[in-house]
Amino acid sequence: MSKTKENILETIYSPEDLKKVNINDLPQLCKEIREYMLNILSEHPGHLASSLGAVELTVAIHYIFNTPYDRVVWDVGHQAYVHKILTERREKFNTIRQLNGLSGFPTPSESEYDTFTAGHASNSISAALGMSVAANLNNEERKVIAVIGDAAISGGLAFEGLNNAASSPNDLLIILNDNDMAIDNNVGALNKYLVKITTSPRYNRFRYNAYSFLRRHKIIQDNHKGIFTRFTNSIKSLISRQQNIFEGLNIRYFGPIDGHDTKSIIKILSDIKEIKGPKLLHLKTVKGKGYLPAEKDVTVWHAPGKFNVDTGERVTSKSSTTRYQDVFGETLVELAEKNDKIVGITPAMPSGCSMTFMRDKFPNRFFDVGIAEEHAVTFSGGLAKEGLKPFCNIYSSFLQRAYDEIIHDVAIQNLPVVFCIDRAGIVGEDGVTHHGSLDIAYLRSIPNMIISAPMNEHYLRHLMYTAANTQSAPFSIRYPRGCGNMLDWRCKPEILEIGKGRQICEGKDIAILSIGSIGNFAIEAINKAKEDGIDVALYDMIFVKPIDTDILTSVAKKYNKIITIEDGTVNGGFGSAVAEIFSQKGYNCKIKMIGIPDKFITHGKPSELYKMCKMDSNGIYEAIVGNW
Amino acid sequence: MSKTKENILETIYSPEDLKKVNINDLPQLCKEIREYMLNILSEHPGHLASSLGAVELTVAIHYIFNTPYDRVVWDVGHQAYVHKILTERREKFNTIRQLNGLSGFPTPSESEYDTFTAGHASNSISAALGMSVAANLNNEERKVIAVIGDAAISGGLAFEGLNNAASSPNDLLIILNDNDMAIDNNVGALNKYLVKITTSPRYNRFRYNAYSFLRRHKIIQDNHKGIFTRFTNSIKSLISRQQNIFEGLNIRYFGPIDGHDTKSIIKILSDIKEIKGPKLLHLKTVKGKGYLPAEKDVTVWHAPGKFNVDTGERVTSKSSTTRYQDVFGETLVELAEKNDKIVGITPAMPSGCSMTFMRDKFPNRFFDVGIAEEHAVTFSGGLAKEGLKPFCNIYSSFLQRAYDEIIHDVAIQNLPVVFCIDRAGIVGEDGVTHHGSLDIAYLRSIPNMIISAPMNEHYLRHLMYTAANTQSAPFSIRYPRGCGNMLDWRCKPEILEIGKGRQICEGKDIAILSIGSIGNFAIEAINKAKEDGIDVALYDMIFVKPIDTDILTSVAKKYNKIITIEDGTVNGGFGSAVAEIFSQKGYNCKIKMIGIPDKFITHGKPSELYKMCKMDSNGIYEAIVGNW
Repeated sequence: MSKTKENILETIYSPEDLKKVNINDLPQLCKEIREYMLNILSEHPGHLASSLGAVELTVAIHYIFNTPYDRVVWDVGHQAYVHKILTERREKFNTIRQLNGLSGFPTPSESEYDTFTAGHASNSISAALGMSVAANLNNEERKVIAVIGDAAISGGLAFEGLNNAASSPNDLLIILNDNDMAIDNNVGALNKYLVKITTSPRYNRFRYNAYSFLRRHKIIQDNHKGIFTRFTNSIKSLISRQQNIFEGLNIRYFGPIDGHDTKSIIKILSDIKEIKGPKLLHLKTVKGKGYLPAEKDVTVWHAPGKFNVDTGERVTSKSSTTRYQDVFGETLVELAEKNDKIVGITPAMPSGCSMTFMRDKFPNRFFDVGIAEEHAVTFSGGLAKEGLKPFCNIYSSFLQRAYDEIIHDVAIQNLPVVFCIDRAGIVGEDGVTHHGSLDIAYLRSIPNMIISAPMNEHYLRHLMYTAANTQSAPFSIRYPRGCGNMLDWRCKPEILEIGKGRQICEGKDIAILSIGSIGNFAIEAINKAKEDGIDVALYDMIFVKPIDTDILTSVAKKYNKIITIEDGTVNGGFGSAVAEIFSQKGYNCKIKMIGIPDKFITHGKPSELYKMCKMDSNGIYEAIVGNW
Repeated sequence: MSKTKENILETIYSPEDLKKVNINDLPQLCKEIREYMLNILSEHPGHLASSLGAVELTVAIHYIFNTPYDRVVWDVGHQAYVHKILTERREKFNTIRQLNGLSGFPTPSESEYDTFTAGHASNSISAALGMSVAANLNNEERKVIAVIGDAAISGGLAFEGLNNAASSPNDLLIILNDNDMAIDNNVGALNKYLVKITTSPRYNRFRYNAYSFLRRHKIIQDNHKGIFTRFTNSIKSLISRQQNIFEGLNIRYFGPIDGHDTKSIIKILSDIKEIKGPKLLHLKTVKGKGYLPAEKDVTVWHAPGKFNVDTGERVTSKSSTTRYQDVFGETLVELAEKNDKIVGITPAMPSGCSMTFMRDKFPNRFFDVGIAEEHAVTFSGGLAKEGLKPFCNIYSSFLQRAYDEIIHDVAIQNLPVVFCIDRAGIVGEDGVTHHGSLDIAYLRSIPNMIISAPMNEHYLRHLMYTAANTQSAPFSIRYPRGCGNMLDWRCKPEILEIGKGRQICEGKDIAILSIGSIGNFAIEAINKAKEDGIDVALYDMIFVKPIDTDILTSVAKKYNKIITIEDGTVNGGFGSAVAEIFSQKGYNCKIKMIGIPDKFITHGKPSELYKMCKMDSNGIYEAIVGNW
């Protein structure tokens, strides 16, 4: 080998440098990249296992393709750390997911190598297809590559992309990064042989010659070219022991091949690069590859936090309080024990939302539908229609994907689906694609929908219990990521009156109306203002819809200074609901609205972002004491 | 045959009666149903071609299954007229799509035979799967059948349903009503033979015996049962000349068979009814079947309006003005002629939205992506990312399906996609699933999004021209279904200042702020109020976002009575945007908000529905002169 093995990575600033590395040294480079990532991410937490599995394929892509002129579209995007390291950002890699640092996901505003927003699954094929079709229309010789995982390709959007891939002229290459052990990975000699013949010029020549022969002998006719494709595909599918869905959609299929064999990937990419039309390369990879602890438990090592690289021990910071997620998960089981109609539905997030408790206790009443938010909601609608009581848990920003299904398949029929909206509000390090900013606004305009948010763990339990006992309408409960404030969260759940808020404290100067856990910041601000002699009342509204008009009326009579607080967008959100009523009634008040401003919010520690949006206790304090 | 041929239909009130009909008389019944539908629908317009194609399959379903105990879930639903006729609603069939009459789509509140909301495509599989899984959990022997067209099955939601169909215990039957001539319909003897052997008890016995043999001889092992399925499926797929995507998803596939051969359908339904697990029956049907004019031109006869049954002549009512759709379609071509970056995207609605003009003029710059709203938006994002200028036309209520894609794949990157939102506001006869009520509300909370609505055809052209020249942000233009008011709509398009409204008339007592074409009602109301001595100013805001704060400020200074008018939901909509600003500024005004109330709106003539919602000129007049 041509250079000292230990420092190849240091010579690489951009893909241009990568292309100078001898192909035989690439495995060594991959090793260095893994070590680099492990060292950085053990100190600066981020997503780990996905990117460990994508090292070779990322190196191969940038080795073969002319990025950034050629476009790589990463799906979901937490597989793209290696991509960031190889594309001019290695030295900033230790800032990943920090305020003003690199984003944890591909971000076009960060680098021209990041071609499209990633974060929500399954969008890469459609986006890349758009780019590839545009290249064609613009007469550009550009290659466009979508890299999508086997989990993301099950989303409906990805299927729509696949289904359209062959309908317009384009040369899209889809790389399927398949690390699911559930999919048959028994790849033998036959498969390798098939990969070889389906991609080598010789095979393509053979294919064409065979076609010409059949045509010459009138066995097939010109307008029947598809038959021959189907014929060869069928043989392939027969031998490869599975129906090939991609070929059924007129996308040429290559693979599966070992996604950790850099040379093989490079060879096949070189071979298929110039093949016209849409094509898919199926790579088998191992999530967490090259780091044993991660290979053994990919769920834990998906985003492990800080850890000791040598021992594989994770540095867990013990909190004295419990995560809202666990309160949800345990309360769901409690309710399900008493009500056998209760079922749990999650689109691929059983661990994240702690529906694992339900899965372990009532496996028959638990449904993980994979990355398929739309199906999760409509399926819940079907379950509810037949008398079951679905608790459908979806992260706020992902629930956007099922907006129409909430309306069309649940709300129009007034079906009693409980939407448990996890990760509502500012989520922190995951950033712009993951903040749960919009749910209050997008749910509020839907008729029949009940919208609530608990101020603390007890109210989460009360609301879940209330929802379990509501048979007439869809019921949303939004709550944040992470720990609450209570040491003792196991209260006896109570049935709340729907649409009724509560007063937390009295005060004569100003009234604060808050919704959800952000109300706790208000208490701190109110206490501070009291020291200045300003006397502020606080109402925890509990429900955004129906809203407690009794509280609104009495507040309007008593105060002309109102502050609304919510952990969501102000535009169309909770404050907006209050303003609508005040304006229609002609109440003569001024309302300061605290919430997420009308822009996309970056990544960083939640405390930093709350501060930036003036939604922390200081921000609320300033609103209280500021100009009126 | 056992009875007079001419009156079988008259003997049928419910499926119970249908089951008494001799199987040999069913073709005669189907003929009568067709005649009945033609007679009624020629006078009382509705969807025609789809239901003509679904006569035999509907008769067969209700003949074999025990509805309503067994559940039939119709996708989209305009194929379900026959279903309505056979399920206790024949005598009301002439009220279809009328106010207080039958809905044009399956509607659970109308009949227990209508099991789930239909109207937006692709939801039937997920909903039916929920029902089937619920039946399993509830220990019910219920059968659940989803009937889905070949157009709807391409939607991402349908794929998510298919992808999950085999993951939970259920006995779902999916009937694919395939009337697309583009799909190979060259069904020969071999296919018929395959249908026979794949569905007959003998074939199933053979299949099982073969499996047992292979197992006994250790050719396959217990945990490899899938291999055998794949083996037989591959043979089938090889012979049937196509990849079978359904079998690839572990759904047993039967077909294709002739969907107009009632006896065959009944036989196969009887055969496969008791087969456990998810299964799909593929029927080939002819849209418009049995009525030659409709068979010849299915697009026109999808919903033909009134017509003469005998001559096939359609009764077209000539309007002196032009449909907004045609203004859009022609203006798009005009703009595209001058700007070669402009491309048009529609999900399966080229005729409905008049993008046919673009298709005919610039076929390479026109993309009909099928029923795939999500893909339409993300694909547009990809096109825009590479410098093209996509005009993506989607009906308001269908755009809900792509809500997340608007946010994630367009707005976050501030990509200059133009969303042309057709069918905004109350659409009339199509009813609850089709009203475009929510778009202002759901778009308004999205950062970067420009939202506009033209008051008339000229402003539609101005806004399209303005959008074509806006490179920095997504731009929405919402406009209604049907004709505008102008005889001469071909003005020279102008570039408008984004976020600026205009004053239509002055007045000292009250100010009306309106958005979109509903402002024309306001003019009528204002003229009427003038006779009562009430002097009302009117502002056409043109933009909901950014909103013209100059107008708001000056109006707030001058008036304390404000009326906002919009053809959309009040909750979170345009009026709400005004209220937010007024409340935050502490303006001391009372605002009456006219718009769609916070409930789902039924079907009927637009004028009737506008009146019901007090959104017509009378409603506006009453708001002006009523209590303040």
